[in-house]
Amino acid sequence: MSASIRLQPGDTIGILGGGQLGRMLAQSAASMGLKTHIFCPEQNSPAFDVSAQNTIAAYEDTAALAAFADAVSVVTYEFENVPGPTAQHLASKVPVRPGVRALEVSQDRLFEKEFLKKSGVAIADFAEITSQADVETAVQNFGGQGVLKTRRFGYDGKGQTMIRSKKDIGGAFERIGNTPAVLEALIGFDCEVSVIVARDLDGNCESYDIARNHHENHILKTSTVPAGVSEQTQTAARKMAERIVSSLDYVGVMGVEMFLVRDGDTEKLLVNEIAPRVHNSGHWTQDACLTSQFDQHIRAVAGWPLGSADRHSDAVMENLIGRDAEDWHAVLKDPAAQMHLYGKAEIRDGRKMGHVNRISPKTG
Amino acid sequence: MSASIRLQPGDTIGILGGGQLGRMLAQSAASMGLKTHIFCPEQNSPAFDVSAQNTIAAYEDTAALAAFADAVSVVTYEFENVPGPTAQHLASKVPVRPGVRALEVSQDRLFEKEFLKKSGVAIADFAEITSQADVETAVQNFGGQGVLKTRRFGYDGKGQTMIRSKKDIGGAFERIGNTPAVLEALIGFDCEVSVIVARDLDGNCESYDIARNHHENHILKTSTVPAGVSEQTQTAARKMAERIVSSLDYVGVMGVEMFLVRDGDTEKLLVNEIAPRVHNSGHWTQDACLTSQFDQHIRAVAGWPLGSADRHSDAVMENLIGRDAEDWHAVLKDPAAQMHLYGKAEIRDGRKMGHVNRISPKTG
Repeated sequence: MSASIRLQPGDTIGILGGGQLGRMLAQSAASMGLKTHIFCPEQNSPAFDVSAQNTIAAYEDTAALAAFADAVSVVTYEFENVPGPTAQHLASKVPVRPGVRALEVSQDRLFEKEFLKKSGVAIADFAEITSQADVETAVQNFGGQGVLKTRRFGYDGKGQTMIRSKKDIGGAFERIGNTPAVLEALIGFDCEVSVIVARDLDGNCESYDIARNHHENHILKTSTVPAGVSEQTQTAARKMAERIVSSLDYVGVMGVEMFLVRDGDTEKLLVNEIAPRVHNSGHWTQDACLTSQFDQHIRAVAGWPLGSADRHSDAVMENLIGRDAEDWHAVLKDPAAQMHLYGKAEIRDGRKMGHVNRISPKTG
Repeated sequence: MSASIRLQPGDTIGILGGGQLGRMLAQSAASMGLKTHIFCPEQNSPAFDVSAQNTIAAYEDTAALAAFADAVSVVTYEFENVPGPTAQHLASKVPVRPGVRALEVSQDRLFEKEFLKKSGVAIADFAEITSQADVETAVQNFGGQGVLKTRRFGYDGKGQTMIRSKKDIGGAFERIGNTPAVLEALIGFDCEVSVIVARDLDGNCESYDIARNHHENHILKTSTVPAGVSEQTQTAARKMAERIVSSLDYVGVMGVEMFLVRDGDTEKLLVNEIAPRVHNSGHWTQDACLTSQFDQHIRAVAGWPLGSADRHSDAVMENLIGRDAEDWHAVLKDPAAQMHLYGKAEIRDGRKMGHVNRISPKTG
């Protein structure tokens, strides 16, 4: 394998994961004349309908992985929990972009925080936790409050517990399953924002306008652009995101979640989490920018130059979660809305079924 | 079958034809949670990579057509030369949209012109031609000039011959193969423009801003929006297009090509040709409008409400024809350009390999 390989139209990108992100990546690849090959264990995955080839196999199936590596020019992934040995095995045969290091860092909250701190971006205070005693010490150091999160496999609010007062401390480590964790200082933040940043094989970066995110039940509900923050904050957020991807020698799109903390007239940003992939809070780019985050990721992993991340319209992205998807006809009737559905047959509570981008003329 | 059937997300649209238009229709359908089933005779068709199902069979294969009709909720097509019996056979089993009548009219230049005239839109003078003697009479009536075109199977300048002076008259009927034809009066037009119009199952119409088209070697090279015509001409063009689709009780997107004739300060429009399908001169809508022509056609044939045809940016669409596609890397380096490639393996002279949309802030 060559780390610097660049694809030609007609070449194939392998994608680990067949959910909605894999599906939208496959659609972007096809628009630019590239083929995709999806590898995932689930039958009837959303991405299968829009990709040229599929392999249904376990991520631990080394024979299937070897055949997959032979069939593609480069491998990318739609989720950060790709098992380490899977990524290592593939990386020995074919370039894996964004890369194995990005997976290692983002799969473990402790590694992630240590990496971010070392990169020089601001983050909330944190402490490594391996016991209930650690929880008690750390909470005391952080002013009696904090969020306890498992180091691995947490998402959409799973694997975490909030400590707001003394009564939340007892049994906290048990509540998250007595598993290695970190305690984060509780931040009195104004809102959560995110930056979608892309970096190409030559080290060039393009970052999108920052989005203001609103969650319901720990799941992203809306992303709004413009985010209503100062120009300085916008610039600072982009710089932080670009610093992070450059520190990782990253190739592809990354979602960087940040807390916006207001102190009087000043705005401060703390990086909360990074996702080494296209990100739900960047779905608005599909309809408000010439180059969407999916196009951008495909360009980067193909070894191609990035497109412009400029925005031509204002946008509000709304996730269609669970039974929200039953309102599809109302969405279609809204002339400002573009409906995106993921082709999932069964509606389940909390399941991301699709999203809507509502577009209006650019104001800022 | 029910003529008024409306699809649900997850339902399947059958598409006759697996070229780039079928491919881009399939991509739009997938974005809105619909599946597609491509029917076409050619192996390795561009649309196969992005559709859930494919049937490779001749358009005359009634058994294959019957199985196809059973597998889909509605049928549409990417080209107007669907054989009449194929369309009739399918229409007896499943709704065919835009419809059999639209095919009949657009497959035959004489029927098309008679229909347009009856609809009350302005067209160039024409005469039915069945012999060389007819050519001679008609040319005389039209001031010694004209364009002789076969009634059927003409496209991209094929099946036509220009009569500019006396010397072109002799042998003209033979040059187009002694086949039934029409002679059109030669129009001293300023430019060719086109309107992409959509009509839904309830009769609502949405038309896009008109595009100015430039051809090279009888093949569309660029479409530019705004077209640089007066507001009245813009309105007149939309009205003509909407009149045409309403006259046909049409469901779907139609491309209407018109000649713009300037007489001093006044602009006059003559309809040249209609295409009962998404149209090459509407590809700019993918990147300059919230709802592309492909989305719009899918919405219409699904029995869904139309999206807004509003334009958020200026656009120049350029076709990548034949070896133009070798310049793909230069296209990628232009930050204002969005590259669309059709996944065709082999470059051939005159073959449409892809297109580029170059986008800029809206000026008019």
